[in-house]
Amino acid sequence: MPPNQFAFRHSIDVRFRDCDAMGHVNNAVFLTFLEQCRLMFWQTLTGTGSPGSGIILARVECDYRAPAYFRDVLEVRLNVGSIGRSSFALNHEIVNLATGKQLAEAKTILVAYDYSAGRSIPIPPETRTLLESVQSGGWAR
Amino acid sequence: MPPNQFAFRHSIDVRFRDCDAMGHVNNAVFLTFLEQCRLMFWQTLTGTGSPGSGIILARVECDYRAPAYFRDVLEVRLNVGSIGRSSFALNHEIVNLATGKQLAEAKTILVAYDYSAGRSIPIPPETRTLLESVQSGGWAR
Amino acid sequence: MPPNQFAFRHSIDVRFRDCDAMGHVNNAVFLTFLEQCRLMFWQTLTGTGSPGSGIILARVECDYRAPAYFRDVLEVRLNVGSIGRSSFALNHEIVNLATGKQLAEAKTILVAYDYSAGRSIPIPPETRTLLESVQSGGWAR
Amino acid sequence: MPPNQFAFRHSIDVRFRDCDAMGHVNNAVFLTFLEQCRLMFWQTLTGTGSPGSGIILARVECDYRAPAYFRDVLEVRLNVGSIGRSSFALNHEIVNLATGKQLAEAKTILVAYDYSAGRSIPIPPETRTLLESVQSGGWAR
Repeated sequence: MPPNQFAFRHSIDVRFRDCDAMGHVNNAVFLTFLEQCRLMFWQTLTGTGSPGSGIILARVECDYRAPAYFRDVLEVRLNVGSIGRSSFALNHEIVNLATGKQLAEAKTILVAYDYSAGRSIPIPPETRTLLESVQSGGWAR
Repeated sequence: MPPNQFAFRHSIDVRFRDCDAMGHVNNAVFLTFLEQCRLMFWQTLTGTGSPGSGIILARVECDYRAPAYFRDVLEVRLNVGSIGRSSFALNHEIVNLATGKQLAEAKTILVAYDYSAGRSIPIPPETRTLLESVQSGGWAR
Repeated sequence: MPPNQFAFRHSIDVRFRDCDAMGHVNNAVFLTFLEQCRLMFWQTLTGTGSPGSGIILARVECDYRAPAYFRDVLEVRLNVGSIGRSSFALNHEIVNLATGKQLAEAKTILVAYDYSAGRSIPIPPETRTLLESVQSGGWAR
Repeated sequence: MPPNQFAFRHSIDVRFRDCDAMGHVNNAVFLTFLEQCRLMFWQTLTGTGSPGSGIILARVECDYRAPAYFRDVLEVRLNVGSIGRSSFALNHEIVNLATGKQLAEAKTILVAYDYSAGRSIPIPPETRTLLESVQSGGWAR
């Protein structure tokens, strides 16, 4: 898949409450936007309504490029990155839809997890197949 | 204006982060939804971009009727209620757009305020005219 | 119990994220502060760790008197108000601990609720006894 | 400074609202905790009340190790990491104070910024001196 090609896009309306005393969207809220995109992607991909069932967030990296403001409409974009034994990466960008300007780049690491055993597990085969289909460009919404 | 007629409507996508450990939208977030509708209304009505300039929130009442959930699309509706010397009321309902079910009824009291003097002031005439046009049903979006 | 006597007090550190673009604590966050006080009270009163089990929030009223700012330490105070068949009221004030200034007065209505049946139920006798002991001034922390 | 030595520590009470439908503190809220620690540190270090004046957040990395829950008391710890021409790093850990368990490790990159010119600037000499004093272990609170 070409580097600027994203498999999933989710739009977000910036709320007044998303902003802080600096007058722009607070840094922590960018993770809320990533989460929103990730869960909508996950539901579309797997049909699983329950968010994050068996998949937990292990790491996030976010580079802030430009501010977002109240009333902006953003698009959070998502690609599947590297897939390991029990973890995989999602690569993101957040753009202002009206201007096309990139506001942030981010990467999250998700881990397949057995809650009852309290430890990571290999990515289930059917999930791996789905992730690979996204990664190879064979799936996009 | 008939009681079920609202002058302004604003739709909201419920985010995962809006929900709490009970699995539904947290009670405080309903006020964020009211605020979002109020500010979008105010901008549409007055053309004033700066939210709340000269108008402050003095009181809120909210009756919670039914829960909202992640991925629900809500509509926050707004009417102008009674208009006093320096304050006015906004009446709200929040409904689930897909089911039409009413989730909450709310009322907020806004006060015209002079920040430099630190006290309430009479509602400016041009604002009063706008509010009355909404109240009388002569304005709706 | 004298009107200025509160049965329970909970202190809150105002975070930067609690504030909005106006530079003071956002109106919705006051409900988060009330909730925090209410749940700490409930746990202290009943020993029940699970917040809100069987008790749901039906209504909130909040009068905003003065702003709160980042780094303020607030105290949320609570009294039991009127007790009905299946509902009861909690009366609140929020003050700035350093200045003693009252920032808000609020009232919440809580309802005993049977989640499986999906309707309100009479307040359980042991809960009623606890609420009455608070109301009469026989309990305070 | 030894690796486990932190120059600044800030405690946080976990609120019910910090948690999401999974029943534990939401991932985005960890960034709110980092921000709270960073701003308290900055004020203590520089005496500057206005948060983030001239310093902006450019990047955050966070590794989530274990969940935090409602009513937990956390401690966010901070060290100054590498100092560049116009940027510097803060290294963090978040621990549960009661158990001592590490819940997260994080790193933020801050950049000295001229808002009027809209670009990064060299770290002002007096700020650099302060940061170096923290980095070398000559300052701790």
